[in-house]
Amino acid sequence: MKTYFECIPCFFKQAMEACKMINLPAEKTKAVMDAVALEIPRLDMTASPPEMAMIIYRIIREKSNNRDPYLRIKRKSNETALAVYPGLKKIVKRSRNRLLKAVEIAIAGNIIDYGALSDLDLNKEIRAVLNSEEKTLEKEKNIYFNFDGFRDSLEKAKSVFYLADNAGELVFDRILIEEIRDMYPDIKIFCAVRGYPAINDCLMQDAITCGIDRLATVVSNGSDAPGTLLESCSREFLDIWKSSDLIISKGQGNFESIADQKENIFFLFIVKCGVLARDIGCRLRDVILYRGNL
Amino acid sequence: MKTYFECIPCFFKQAMEACKMINLPAEKTKAVMDAVALEIPRLDMTASPPEMAMIIYRIIREKSNNRDPYLRIKRKSNETALAVYPGLKKIVKRSRNRLLKAVEIAIAGNIIDYGALSDLDLNKEIRAVLNSEEKTLEKEKNIYFNFDGFRDSLEKAKSVFYLADNAGELVFDRILIEEIRDMYPDIKIFCAVRGYPAINDCLMQDAITCGIDRLATVVSNGSDAPGTLLESCSREFLDIWKSSDLIISKGQGNFESIADQKENIFFLFIVKCGVLARDIGCRLRDVILYRGNL
Repeated sequence: MKTYFECIPCFFKQAMEACKMINLPAEKTKAVMDAVALEIPRLDMTASPPEMAMIIYRIIREKSNNRDPYLRIKRKSNETALAVYPGLKKIVKRSRNRLLKAVEIAIAGNIIDYGALSDLDLNKEIRAVLNSEEKTLEKEKNIYFNFDGFRDSLEKAKSVFYLADNAGELVFDRILIEEIRDMYPDIKIFCAVRGYPAINDCLMQDAITCGIDRLATVVSNGSDAPGTLLESCSREFLDIWKSSDLIISKGQGNFESIADQKENIFFLFIVKCGVLARDIGCRLRDVILYRGNL
Repeated sequence: MKTYFECIPCFFKQAMEACKMINLPAEKTKAVMDAVALEIPRLDMTASPPEMAMIIYRIIREKSNNRDPYLRIKRKSNETALAVYPGLKKIVKRSRNRLLKAVEIAIAGNIIDYGALSDLDLNKEIRAVLNSEEKTLEKEKNIYFNFDGFRDSLEKAKSVFYLADNAGELVFDRILIEEIRDMYPDIKIFCAVRGYPAINDCLMQDAITCGIDRLATVVSNGSDAPGTLLESCSREFLDIWKSSDLIISKGQGNFESIADQKENIFFLFIVKCGVLARDIGCRLRDVILYRGNL
């Protein structure tokens, strides 16, 4: 997805919210805003928004003199999500369509996103998921919710590459990864995390904390972009990318950066941005299970 | 009012919306965004937001090579508002409290604001005013709606300085100015318009088109700020400013720039910005009739 003019105010909003989130003093916040502003004339509008987001969060790390400003927030998200894991598991177990329910839970976990939604009440959101009945997300489904296509793709796959998004959300991903492993024990599952801190996106440590390393081969993508910018990804990541039968891409940042790729990718996310909604023709908060390039 | 960090994304949003409004091509829009960005490091956060807005709209005029990009929009607002003038007049005439109704109409006219609310449906808004009953705004009134104080101030005043805001809105102001003139024929009424184009703020020509020149002595404030930056105002404006018993200040831009002044000012506007709402402790869309420095 290209960068729209509407993304420019949003870049500053994200920078500002991030500074607030990590309690950066006013002078340093102004320094962040100034540095972001100086990047605008260099901004390539044909590039995807996560390219600029990567630069913004580099600026925040530099000005805050903190290589992982969201560390505490990520740890808290992991803890909160792990605490509800048994409840999520129960929901799947009593469901008539376990795979569908696991998909729904994985997508619901995508609400954990401090880049797009800063005033997030994590506990409230998770409670909403825990209280969900069989049909909760059914009503929100749309032309971008292609569960049959997703299941068909899984049935044919020998290898799956799961591109994770946020810390905490990983616990919700675990529900889906466990379901895939149980239903399709022959599928080889890889899971990619970010290589370096990028907002609250998950790193190797989060994958270990959330128990993903016991279910899948976890690899770092080698990048600090809050998305998947292939040109910044490691050789190891790209090898798995090319050889996987099915790529499961979580979150809006991943979608924005690889929506145009030719691989067999299913995008799972909640639409959190009006510009993206307009770009793909859906509504804000829509629940997306969408096969790219169809 | 000082500039908050939240104002920075909003500056870019306003610039972008203005470019869209005047159909500026993409390359020129990018040039505007770049130029606005380069102003951010120079931005004084203790200055009021209209100071930066003044710079932004100067940039838009320069990059669009158009000294009055909102001219057509202003003419349309004047026409639309003049067409409903007889209806507004009828509402006042059949009202039990004509001054209160005229105040309400003048404030309702403040919805005509292309800086803060760009996707405005003017006709719809005006219809809402025309259909209003005696109590329409009553429910929205709050501690900032001090009608008794306003009437008391008018009763004591020998001279009133009316700081106008947007084109079109001027017709709604005319309703209030006529009411003041009819009720207090001894009051000398001055009305200030902007000195140069600033968004859709009114100029001398708009005051003439809307018939204000036949009711009040209209003066230019000598400035191109979308607000009242006293240091950029003309000597003539400042002389009237100092000698007036009561200043009636319309709109958010005027409020933001002169809220801290010591004169006897009543601010009439609709709150269109969450930052300002938080700053003064009210809600978005609140109807304000507020005496400064009380």
